[in-house]
Amino acid sequence: FIRESLQGIKAADITALLYEFNPEEAKYVMDLLPIEMQAEIISDLDSDTRKKNLKVYQPHEISEFLNHLASDDTADILHELPVKEREEVLSGLDPELRSQVIELLRYEENVAGGLMAKELMKARYHWSVVQCIDEIRKQAENVSKFYAVYVVDDQDKLMGRVALQDLIITDARTIVGDICEKDIISVETYLEDREVAEIMRKYDLESVPVVNVQGQLVGRITIDDVVDVITEQAEEERQAMTGISEAVEEDDSVWRNARARLPWLLIGIFGGLMNAKFMGLFEVQLARVTAIAFFTPLIQATGGNVGIQSSSLIVQSLANPNFVDEGLWKRLIKVFFVAILNGLFLSVLVLGANVLLFGEYTLSLIVSIALFSVVVFASFIGTITPLVLNRFGFNPALAAGPFITTINDLLGLTLYFLTIRLLLI
Amino acid sequence: FIRESLQGIKAADITALLYEFNPEEAKYVMDLLPIEMQAEIISDLDSDTRKKNLKVYQPHEISEFLNHLASDDTADILHELPVKEREEVLSGLDPELRSQVIELLRYEENVAGGLMAKELMKARYHWSVVQCIDEIRKQAENVSKFYAVYVVDDQDKLMGRVALQDLIITDARTIVGDICEKDIISVETYLEDREVAEIMRKYDLESVPVVNVQGQLVGRITIDDVVDVITEQAEEERQAMTGISEAVEEDDSVWRNARARLPWLLIGIFGGLMNAKFMGLFEVQLARVTAIAFFTPLIQATGGNVGIQSSSLIVQSLANPNFVDEGLWKRLIKVFFVAILNGLFLSVLVLGANVLLFGEYTLSLIVSIALFSVVVFASFIGTITPLVLNRFGFNPALAAGPFITTINDLLGLTLYFLTIRLLLI
Ligand SMILES: [Mg+2]
Ligand SMILES: [Mg+2]
Ligand SMILES: [Mg+2]
Ligand SMILES: [Mg+2]
Ligand SMILES: [Mg+2]
Ligand SMILES: [Mg+2]
Ligand SMILES: [Mg+2]
Ligand SMILES: [Mg+2]
Ligand SMILES: [Mg+2]
Ligand SMILES: [Mg+2]
Ligand SMILES: [Mg+2]
Ligand SMILES: [Mg+2]
Ligand SMILES: [Mg+2]
Repeated sequence: FIRESLQGIKAADITALLYEFNPEEAKYVMDLLPIEMQAEIISDLDSDTRKKNLKVYQPHEISEFLNHLASDDTADILHELPVKEREEVLSGLDPELRSQVIELLRYEENVAGGLMAKELMKARYHWSVVQCIDEIRKQAENVSKFYAVYVVDDQDKLMGRVALQDLIITDARTIVGDICEKDIISVETYLEDREVAEIMRKYDLESVPVVNVQGQLVGRITIDDVVDVITEQAEEERQAMTGISEAVEEDDSVWRNARARLPWLLIGIFGGLMNAKFMGLFEVQLARVTAIAFFTPLIQATGGNVGIQSSSLIVQSLANPNFVDEGLWKRLIKVFFVAILNGLFLSVLVLGANVLLFGEYTLSLIVSIALFSVVVFASFIGTITPLVLNRFGFNPALAAGPFITTINDLLGLTLYFLTIRLLLI
Repeated sequence: FIRESLQGIKAADITALLYEFNPEEAKYVMDLLPIEMQAEIISDLDSDTRKKNLKVYQPHEISEFLNHLASDDTADILHELPVKEREEVLSGLDPELRSQVIELLRYEENVAGGLMAKELMKARYHWSVVQCIDEIRKQAENVSKFYAVYVVDDQDKLMGRVALQDLIITDARTIVGDICEKDIISVETYLEDREVAEIMRKYDLESVPVVNVQGQLVGRITIDDVVDVITEQAEEERQAMTGISEAVEEDDSVWRNARARLPWLLIGIFGGLMNAKFMGLFEVQLARVTAIAFFTPLIQATGGNVGIQSSSLIVQSLANPNFVDEGLWKRLIKVFFVAILNGLFLSVLVLGANVLLFGEYTLSLIVSIALFSVVVFASFIGTITPLVLNRFGFNPALAAGPFITTINDLLGLTLYFLTIRLLLI
């Protein structure tokens, strides 16, 4: 029954189903499928699940799968295996794939070299269109998706590309070098994956050739893999922004979910204890004017909101390579004016509301002054923190989350009690 | 000089430069470029800038540009123009493009129909490969990127596709219907853009045919436009999560930046005032035990962090269509266990810390009980809010931002003073 209901279905649909099974059940279902489909499914699974599921396979079985995959996907899977098993699996690969993969394994996963596949269509610039088509016939069984033939010189240096549609509509005796598009976009092996993504997005490319430092064509990156990079990066950014410290999904175990949340909660707790200790220094003033305590939530919440808004705008700028960096000072001056504008508006509003609601003039004035200062300072901290994190190689999105909130809670309290100290005593 | 330095540069690079100029300067630079490049640049600009820059052009000049663009990009630009100008520009379009665009203008922008272009390669299933290649020769000048020929029956119903590479390597007398891939993935005109993106990502497609309710081929969507959809959605989500209420960039005006931030700040202020009013009800208790006030920041910050973590995980699940909805109850039970685990850990830790730091046993116990309750309740609110927002058609990411923080600040305070009420009096 299972076998029958799996007819005509696509690999990607089965992948989605497989997340519901344990490795043994998954293997049972997989065994009913053609080997090409099994291979595609293995490659589609997320890394965690794949590692778990591959545990029930022998190295030579894994080699079998990989022999049906492209070199980039093979390299990705080998990267995840323990070194010993990796060697065993490698030795079971077809010789051509093996040598391609060994070359790919040299690259880190988050650079162009780690994204590229070795399979591509290559033609020498002095070939004729008919020679080129002959070559495509030979190579076609290895290269599953191709959109263009890359044209190289005798030293394998990338010269240009010919779109397939141009090959089809051009006279067979034409020389490839004459119809190829020169000046094409290529990336070097060491370019970071997010920059590769940005280039492909900007120039609307469905594939991009990869060259080494000598300018020789060594591979190509296709858009489907880059779409995955874009999706993952958006997810990483969200996790950084919401205080989740390891990749986790709602359907992971209770234990793992709890563990992923704990680090940032602990930092928040630590900040909260410091807040308590700090307020303790003002016990006398608090005992005299209890209403002081009423406004700490207002001031802290506003500081947190302003800080996160500011850092989120910087994170957005940093993510956009077209953004023209106006320099730190111009940035800060602008942030300053925005803060003045909103700070003034909010503190006047709150002054009015407080006088109406509580009638305490001095305290209302203090709250508004503190609120204004918090808006200004939180804007600065929110602007500078992601820039500093980015400079030191951390994910700047970290600054749009619990980090900035914790700092701003303390900042808000300090400014508030400083104002009290200055104006109330 | 400008003309010279612009030689050999790509349209997308000039687009990036153009953001630095005002419309008149931009027009001056544009006039130095070939019309095809000008058209591409206009289409590449973001919608705001384009609207501003097109103001200095006459309708017939805009028609000139659009005549060099694909139907999808033309429709996008026409969508932005005021109705009167739109009609004028439409009347200046080449007849074929005009009729294509008029059809595209019927669709909303955020569905497959609004993403698709009319330009595509179409062949009847009874054609031979050689007929098909002839047809490609004819159509080639209109279709700039194509990867496959779609095969239709006599009623224009989509039957399958032939990859270009297969056309190249197949004997010329073969019937197209025999070599075409059946069972291909297509989308209907009314499918939402984010679902189109998810399908193209899942099945690794570089283009997808669009069919109407009768199954007839009406257009095709290419991955470059879908990459833009994915990027924009990630940006929208970030803005929703960080309390920025209209699309804004750091380099927009001070005034616009201030305005985009204000709505959520106001909601935070309103929450803060309610916090103050609520604490006012406990003035007597606060006056007696001042230390009560010390711990509101701790409890509120933790509530905020837990709430945002929970909603972010739900937002992530909702964004992933492969996610198997386990049902509300299973979700809540899991969230409950995670909350119990973290809540217990944190409240025991804080109990120890408070006894050590402040030595007040009763109050420390109260704080820990309140903290535990806040972790549990904030988890529930963080889980349910995005589900409710999503159900009613709002962006669930709104629940991972100031919204949830404001609710949880109030919740934290309520639970804390409720505990005080129960245990201290
Ligand atoms: Mg794939
Ligand atoms: Mg891959
Ligand atoms: Mg790789
Ligand atoms: Mg693009
Ligand atoms: Mg690939
Ligand atoms: Mg997982
Ligand atoms: Mg474009
Ligand atoms: Mg478009
Ligand atoms: Mg459109
Ligand atoms: Mg994919
Ligand atoms: Mg397009
Ligand atoms: Mg803008
Ligand atoms: Mg807060």
